Amino acid sequence: MSLLVLGTVALDDIQTSNGVKQDLLGGSASHFAMSASLFSEVHLVGVVGKDFPKRHFKLFDLKRINVESVQIKEGKTFHWVGQYDARDWNRAVTLETQLGVLDGYEPCITEEQARMKYVFLANDDPEVQMTLLKKMKKPRFVGMDSMNLWIELKKDALLRLIKCVDLFVANDSEAKMLTGELNLIKAARELRKLGPRFVVIKKGEHGVIFFCDRFLFSFPAYPIDRVIDPTGAGDTFAGGLMGYLARTGTLTCDNFKRACLYGTTCSSFNVEGYGVSKTAPLTLADVHARLRKLDKFIKPV
Amino acid sequence: MSLLVLGTVALDDIQTSNGVKQDLLGGSASHFAMSASLFSEVHLVGVVGKDFPKRHFKLFDLKRINVESVQIKEGKTFHWVGQYDARDWNRAVTLETQLGVLDGYEPCITEEQARMKYVFLANDDPEVQMTLLKKMKKPRFVGMDSMNLWIELKKDALLRLIKCVDLFVANDSEAKMLTGELNLIKAARELRKLGPRFVVIKKGEHGVIFFCDRFLFSFPAYPIDRVIDPTGAGDTFAGGLMGYLARTGTLTCDNFKRACLYGTTCSSFNVEGYGVSKTAPLTLADVHARLRKLDKFIKPV
Repeated sequence: MSLLVLGTVALDDIQTSNGVKQDLLGGSASHFAMSASLFSEVHLVGVVGKDFPKRHFKLFDLKRINVESVQIKEGKTFHWVGQYDARDWNRAVTLETQLGVLDGYEPCITEEQARMKYVFLANDDPEVQMTLLKKMKKPRFVGMDSMNLWIELKKDALLRLIKCVDLFVANDSEAKMLTGELNLIKAARELRKLGPRFVVIKKGEHGVIFFCDRFLFSFPAYPIDRVIDPTGAGDTFAGGLMGYLARTGTLTCDNFKRACLYGTTCSSFNVEGYGVSKTAPLTLADVHARLRKLDKFIKPV
Repeated sequence: MSLLVLGTVALDDIQTSNGVKQDLLGGSASHFAMSASLFSEVHLVGVVGKDFPKRHFKLFDLKRINVESVQIKEGKTFHWVGQYDARDWNRAVTLETQLGVLDGYEPCITEEQARMKYVFLANDDPEVQMTLLKKMKKPRFVGMDSMNLWIELKKDALLRLIKCVDLFVANDSEAKMLTGELNLIKAARELRKLGPRFVVIKKGEHGVIFFCDRFLFSFPAYPIDRVIDPTGAGDTFAGGLMGYLARTGTLTCDNFKRACLYGTTCSSFNVEGYGVSKTAPLTLADVHARLRKLDKFIKPV
């Protein structure tokens, strides 16, 4: 089943203790699409500037990611400059943000895309996310992600959007910030009251917790001893999760577990390299090989 | 199989957002013994002052915890005043420490105890831990725990001790502090180089990771939506782990997994009440009931 993802397509500059990299392919939709495209046909919705390097379009093409609804506008591609401290890879420090063509962007999709059943609203302005969602005709399953910036700047718009989705994917600090609850289990419960039937809390190196009315489960992250750049790990996780759901189409406990394990596995590759350098060349065989190790790592007995 | 534990027996004052409690039964050995005694015959080695309330001895008696090597000395019982911020239950803030009879304490054990096969050196002065260990005659399996204080004050003595044990149980910040490694997987590897064949890193609400040369595994913590007092959660975990190992006696991957799951389950009860209020009345049936839920919560598919 096809999967439509709206989100940012960015050029990232990343500074870590491992060094500095510039103009990496980044953005929530790019990272999401890298892993989701392993499982499903992915249609990317977003905007870039005229400066967007052709090699990145080539990569999308190579990954069979449909970019017909990626607008190319006069101006500069959204640019993010971020920094990580190796003592806390879970927290990115934003040094600079240049919105560029994101400013005033309105998503447009084709008739065919509007009828797609699986939709993910990757981190973006919640008003832009809502605009896209309103263009969808009876989607079967809608997931979304956001970030602290939107909780601060556009909380009302964000809450309106959350009410309309099936799955809300948040990291632990966002979940606490949005609900005012310090306990994650309570925070997830509050998030579900805002609308979504399904909530996933991402905890970076500590893994994920999944909540719905019938079950909850938790998996640790795959153990990585050399983190290079965690940018996009959460988007990569969501891509694996949604890609697997769109491929399999069932909303059972076991299927959500499998989806989260695929997401966890994909994101473990993401953090091992800058940008999409480790997720772009990934094959399903790579993912399965690591998933088998992950299964062993977390299986009770 | 009998299990000998050396550690502190304390009176704790605990301040949290839930309120203040005074003169709670605390200390590493007390918390450890509460869970370990569910699985094995536990012999406690420590010291208290004349002020130590009789009701606490009655509790040890009720739990069939052998206290013949708990010395009662002139002076005051070790007293700890600690505080937690609900935003970070993983970090206790020490407001006051009165060593009391701990000062100058030398552990003494019986001939029978010296021949016990399973030993745990719960958090205590590493020189005191070493004194006890030297009195043991061919133990089969020795585990230990420590804390940041001893890494700061007596690192050399601590390193000498770590070299002699089979299992080192540390929390994440201690593991990083002791090894200088910011990545937990690397830190655990470095800890194993210091001597212990087995290393467990405790991550509080995020669960545990187990390391040895043949396998590694990780489990999330049991989801608790109302933390009251996490004091002793790590000791309670270690008690469940060691108690189960002493009971079953095999060092296979599956047995270590089971042992860690028992430890995880016991510690989840610990945080739901002040001091030992939730672990003291625990039965194996309670533990098994929650363990079944934990299994469901963490099982891959």
